[in-house]
Amino acid sequence: MNNFTLTLLGTASAMPVGDRNQSAQVLQVRERLFLIDCGEGTQGQMVRLGIPMMKLDAIFLSHIHGDHVFGLFGLLSTIGMKGRQAPLYIYAPANFGPVLKFFLSYYGEGIPFEIHFVPLKMKAPETVFDGKALEVLAFPLNHGIETFGFLFREKEPMWNVRKEAIAQYGFTLTEIGAIKRGEDVVRPDGVIPNAEVAYKPYVPRSFAYCSDTAPFPEEAEWVRGVDLLYHEATYLAEYADQAEARHHTTTLQAAALARDAGAGRLVVAHFSSRCRDASRYEEECRSVFPETCAGKDGDVFEIGK
Amino acid sequence: MNNFTLTLLGTASAMPVGDRNQSAQVLQVRERLFLIDCGEGTQGQMVRLGIPMMKLDAIFLSHIHGDHVFGLFGLLSTIGMKGRQAPLYIYAPANFGPVLKFFLSYYGEGIPFEIHFVPLKMKAPETVFDGKALEVLAFPLNHGIETFGFLFREKEPMWNVRKEAIAQYGFTLTEIGAIKRGEDVVRPDGVIPNAEVAYKPYVPRSFAYCSDTAPFPEEAEWVRGVDLLYHEATYLAEYADQAEARHHTTTLQAAALARDAGAGRLVVAHFSSRCRDASRYEEECRSVFPETCAGKDGDVFEIGK
Repeated sequence: MNNFTLTLLGTASAMPVGDRNQSAQVLQVRERLFLIDCGEGTQGQMVRLGIPMMKLDAIFLSHIHGDHVFGLFGLLSTIGMKGRQAPLYIYAPANFGPVLKFFLSYYGEGIPFEIHFVPLKMKAPETVFDGKALEVLAFPLNHGIETFGFLFREKEPMWNVRKEAIAQYGFTLTEIGAIKRGEDVVRPDGVIPNAEVAYKPYVPRSFAYCSDTAPFPEEAEWVRGVDLLYHEATYLAEYADQAEARHHTTTLQAAALARDAGAGRLVVAHFSSRCRDASRYEEECRSVFPETCAGKDGDVFEIGK
Repeated sequence: MNNFTLTLLGTASAMPVGDRNQSAQVLQVRERLFLIDCGEGTQGQMVRLGIPMMKLDAIFLSHIHGDHVFGLFGLLSTIGMKGRQAPLYIYAPANFGPVLKFFLSYYGEGIPFEIHFVPLKMKAPETVFDGKALEVLAFPLNHGIETFGFLFREKEPMWNVRKEAIAQYGFTLTEIGAIKRGEDVVRPDGVIPNAEVAYKPYVPRSFAYCSDTAPFPEEAEWVRGVDLLYHEATYLAEYADQAEARHHTTTLQAAALARDAGAGRLVVAHFSSRCRDASRYEEECRSVFPETCAGKDGDVFEIGK
């Protein structure tokens, strides 16, 4: 089984604290490496955690708040200096366009690779990345400023033909093609059911990233059945008023969402600097959704194991 | 004696390495706190090292290269969020003006305090900060792009009158004023020499910051007699060609400068990511100027002790 792994680089909210950097995560899906948000210090965290920043396939930015993007300039400069040639796609809200454009006008000389900026403007989930085995959907969040969540999901694989069945039935190439598409093999002497000779090589895995946002009605539907849900839980339940005023989510709300969406597991972070005891966040979430982990910088989650 | 203390926040050169952040230093001079350069991760380092970022009096930026300035946006955002009200002076090359202006146009809403940008354009040392007991001079460096060094020096103090002399001679207020200005006291019955009744409360201390730069003829003169000299030494002596091509300094050149300028001590940093063994930098420098220290993140230097 190939990797489908989430690594947390930064789990602080807007205010940095000693052992928590600002928001950034790396998702590895097989041979692909995606960076999701890029708070200040992201490149340093990648160095410390041994994540090859030169191999990033794309960058997804949820919104333009500094604690989610101020690490981008340094990261682009560094991989430029190190000689990256491959084009880099950056998916971000449309209002990040001028920021990137200004940065490139001042610092672009040191960046020898092409940057393709993909402005996000959708009002409902849309596929923004469509690979052979993986697709990424972006969807709007509810943060009082243009903000987007991302759903990374593997595509349903073709059927594989069991080796012993090939030996037993001596399938032709045409028959093998039919089996891979999920069809039965029809021969003059009878039908060989697909289920008897084929299997799915893997169950598609999925990960969703929701930060920053207040809860909103469509959210559970848009991340339904996800294996691992990352959701901000900036506030403990007692600060629900502040969470609402600042378009953020409480522990209990994040956990209720994971439960309602039928998520496999929940990781929460983006904790307010007011409370340094992450176990309190975890405890409150687990009262509603037991499969919750309060993330910390450097945590690695294997998805779909 | 009040503090005159340098703290290194970041000692890497352009490429970040695990235990070295990008360029930033904090200089405390008595009750004042100055930030010199502001590479990515500066605010996190201030949090980790217990330096009160809300109390910064001014920020000095040597040049616009990202590894010296990309931490500024996050720092300004954070102290804005924490409610700083006091105006903040930022001294930087004139070409940083548009960067700051763009940043404020996009992110200024969260910054409730006034920012006074002081563009540096001088061709020779000029006083840019003139306090009661301290002045700061800026002077051009030689880095192939507008770059400035900074000299922080205490002013010559007034003379203090010895307590026992006051008791002995019963000085009038007018006489005390004269003594403080360094004058002798002239009485009908004779002259009381200043040196007999007065002393200087402290010897003025000084610190100079030179990064990034290749050596240049006026440099030793401009930092002459400084107590502590911070100078970049990006390259070991064997890479003198690269140092020259990239407008940087080698170990031996930095040490020769400290010697020629009659500096008290030398701190070198901004080491190339190529060589992780800082003791090699230190060793090479010490062969020319024994009072050299290869800086590392978190180092604190008391100046003028």
